[in-house]
Amino acid sequence: MSTAAATRALPADSVGYVVPQKFHFDEPLPLRSGRTLEHYDLMVETYGTLNADRSNALLICHALSGDHHAAGYHDPSNPKEKPGWWDCCIGPGKPFDTDRFFVVCLNNLGGCAGSTGPSSLNPDTGKPFGPDFPIVTVRDWVAAQARLADRLGIDCWAAVIGGSLGGMQVMRWAISHPQRLRHALIIAAAPKLSAQNIAFNEVARQSIMSDPDFHQGRYYDFGTYPKRGVTLARMVGHITYLSDTSLREKFGKAGRDSNFGRDLRDGRLSFGFDVDFQVQSYLQYKGETFSSRFDANSYLLMTKALDYFDPTVDYDGDLSRAFTSSTCKFLVISFTSDWRFAPERSREIVDALLKARKEVSYLEIEAAEGHDSFLLPIPRYMQTLHAYLGRVAAECAGGTP
Amino acid sequence: MSTAAATRALPADSVGYVVPQKFHFDEPLPLRSGRTLEHYDLMVETYGTLNADRSNALLICHALSGDHHAAGYHDPSNPKEKPGWWDCCIGPGKPFDTDRFFVVCLNNLGGCAGSTGPSSLNPDTGKPFGPDFPIVTVRDWVAAQARLADRLGIDCWAAVIGGSLGGMQVMRWAISHPQRLRHALIIAAAPKLSAQNIAFNEVARQSIMSDPDFHQGRYYDFGTYPKRGVTLARMVGHITYLSDTSLREKFGKAGRDSNFGRDLRDGRLSFGFDVDFQVQSYLQYKGETFSSRFDANSYLLMTKALDYFDPTVDYDGDLSRAFTSSTCKFLVISFTSDWRFAPERSREIVDALLKARKEVSYLEIEAAEGHDSFLLPIPRYMQTLHAYLGRVAAECAGGTP
Repeated sequence: MSTAAATRALPADSVGYVVPQKFHFDEPLPLRSGRTLEHYDLMVETYGTLNADRSNALLICHALSGDHHAAGYHDPSNPKEKPGWWDCCIGPGKPFDTDRFFVVCLNNLGGCAGSTGPSSLNPDTGKPFGPDFPIVTVRDWVAAQARLADRLGIDCWAAVIGGSLGGMQVMRWAISHPQRLRHALIIAAAPKLSAQNIAFNEVARQSIMSDPDFHQGRYYDFGTYPKRGVTLARMVGHITYLSDTSLREKFGKAGRDSNFGRDLRDGRLSFGFDVDFQVQSYLQYKGETFSSRFDANSYLLMTKALDYFDPTVDYDGDLSRAFTSSTCKFLVISFTSDWRFAPERSREIVDALLKARKEVSYLEIEAAEGHDSFLLPIPRYMQTLHAYLGRVAAECAGGTP
Repeated sequence: MSTAAATRALPADSVGYVVPQKFHFDEPLPLRSGRTLEHYDLMVETYGTLNADRSNALLICHALSGDHHAAGYHDPSNPKEKPGWWDCCIGPGKPFDTDRFFVVCLNNLGGCAGSTGPSSLNPDTGKPFGPDFPIVTVRDWVAAQARLADRLGIDCWAAVIGGSLGGMQVMRWAISHPQRLRHALIIAAAPKLSAQNIAFNEVARQSIMSDPDFHQGRYYDFGTYPKRGVTLARMVGHITYLSDTSLREKFGKAGRDSNFGRDLRDGRLSFGFDVDFQVQSYLQYKGETFSSRFDANSYLLMTKALDYFDPTVDYDGDLSRAFTSSTCKFLVISFTSDWRFAPERSREIVDALLKARKEVSYLEIEAAEGHDSFLLPIPRYMQTLHAYLGRVAAECAGGTP
């Protein structure tokens, strides 16, 4: 989908300008909640070319606030445009090498970037769904992704790949559709949320739902938006995505952590409730920026999908039993400073896979950037993905999936 | 101050029913901000008896949401009344043994439990201070505490003791009034907040200040209260007071953490935005209960005192230099699962004291309860305090302070 109409010199290893595609589905999708989505759209981006035997496709699953725009650029007229959220991984010569792979990324159901979600028009009412949009789960997303694979003619993904909530979708693929993927890359994930994880999500939801502009989720009808609530929710979230160390380095003199990241914004204390420390304005900025681009109801849905994810629910709480029928190979990656989904949580996945006698590789990457590390071009991490996907590509080329 | 008018059988090691005392001060108190408090009240509780040479006094410094009511009971007519916040430590035969010590605890300036604070009437306007109340710092609190010591005729505390923000006041005593304390007990504290600590406080403040009922802190005049904001602020705070492990144990089946603390409230998922997991209702309950008892402006002030605390500010960032003139002995205690002020932070204090060649004992207590551990009767912790204070009491009895 790349176009040559560039007014900006893009990096040589960029996928270039891309155009998202909307896929419409009319076959009703039964959901975990017992409800059904009669019709829905999925917004999709693809990079690279599907080979003749359709064996070189990678599915990228996005995390909480991600979408289909994983790589490249949209707007040739905007020289300041930032590339997609996983651009460091996707492109010619990059770990998910678009010279060798056909890479697919979609906005999940319930999102707010073009796929059917709470801000979409409800055909029954002609108004946005708002709170009437059903709760969607990781299992529902994977069911919709499988329909997309059918539509694209992909029987079996070379690999399904995701970080954080994306990694949970990868696990669900390996459990529900064992014949449809050859490799599962589970990055910075956890088998399920802990009480502390749920607690942070609850604070985020209460921030949004208690905002008077929320109007029980019908803010579209009131011409309002719970901006304060979404800003707060994202501020809390953002703290959990970063590590204490990365904040100290980011906001400590000359990147040293010797002052614990206490750099002042104006060189002195205000003795008031304005911003004193740079970390405060950073956090406020992050929260406000996010609130201007993300739909509040979608945010609520995404946190609920996280809370509800539990691949062991049909297996008496036993994760290794959940993986019994999986046939793919696994790569599990964690990051040392990630305290949202700590390495310990990844090792729980690895232990379950080993107990189920699956082929699994595990790497704990030394990184200071906390949970967000999975989005960053950390050399050892990139090298690992590069090497692993190189072997996957060789399998595709050999034609023996 | 104990009375015998009990309709309830209190534990034998309780200080019994106590009556707080209000001390009024007319000597103006110059504050760190450059402003001055012309008059102020301090609400105080004492337990035990001051000995003849006034050498057996302990000062207890409270943390973020604490107050003067550290031990015993107030209301004989309420059989369900809970005792003061550090009742496990204070009483006859307890670590802070009221048969041997005269124990003093006060509500700090800016608080909302009787000492002068934002909800007090501003004599200049006849209305509550609200946002006009000055920012107060740990140094200001300790200056006021020193005035209280003067009033009580206490030249030198046998020990000054505090946990968390209370421990910061202890450090300030050792630095600013080295001749006025013989022992400093610094529990679950940190030399200063890190960027992550400040970030969590910022979320709490933004929750309160962005609540439409806050009215720039003048909610008293509007007959409103930023209940949603304070509830949210406390929910966030509460997560940081507990450990992941303690939440798993609290909300995991039969106290096991094998389901990660994911116990459901109603036995099944709601597929809506009501409470699904017990941890959610617990957190909401904790937040709401707190919001009904604590003044929003006081909460803002307390978080700011935390952010601003930096005993190294006059010593070029060098904590050991800050302690140069300290003459007391130190006991520093941390708790393994405390991630708000982790053991590492306590070790920074210990290292600075050692570098300054001070006499310091350090103990890291194995405990699952996170930062809140310092409030709990954990056996090894109680034994440590008991033994240490036993030696302090022996010094007092020896009459050689």
